[in-house]
Amino acid sequence: MTSTEILGYCAAFLTTSSFLPQAFLTLKTKDTHSLSLSMYSLFTMGILFWLIYGIQIQDYAIIIANSITFLLASMILGFKIYNVIYKQG
Amino acid sequence: MTSTEILGYCAAFLTTSSFLPQAFLTLKTKDTHSLSLSMYSLFTMGILFWLIYGIQIQDYAIIIANSITFLLASMILGFKIYNVIYKQG
Repeated sequence: MTSTEILGYCAAFLTTSSFLPQAFLTLKTKDTHSLSLSMYSLFTMGILFWLIYGIQIQDYAIIIANSITFLLASMILGFKIYNVIYKQG
Repeated sequence: MTSTEILGYCAAFLTTSSFLPQAFLTLKTKDTHSLSLSMYSLFTMGILFWLIYGIQIQDYAIIIANSITFLLASMILGFKIYNVIYKQG
């Protein structure tokens, strides 16, 4: 594995795992007041596109990283939508 | 351009542009209470790694997308750190 490939895997690990603490914070506090609904809508759709892209080019790193991020981002988006509908924020 | 390449560009456009509404919301409200400090720290570092990766493999799509995301994520992280230090949240 070259140093460039290692850098790519580190980058993928960091950007994917970064959504874990946000998901935990949202689960714990149920507070989504300062989260942008537009951001999570666009982002979750974008991650779904990355996932389909990964499946099409059969790149397992892209498939695995984006499957995890898609689950976490969908959960955060779900809380945000629930709060917007039932709690005005 | 193949349909797979178009899908990749759409995915990159969506995940990059998704940080714009979050940056605007944070700029407008200055509220970062439900944003995770760990998420934005890991994410911003990950995006920096993606940027260096893009420079190393000379991929302009990766360079441009991650330069923009890095600026937006850094700004949001800056607000969060400021609020944690000066406003306890």
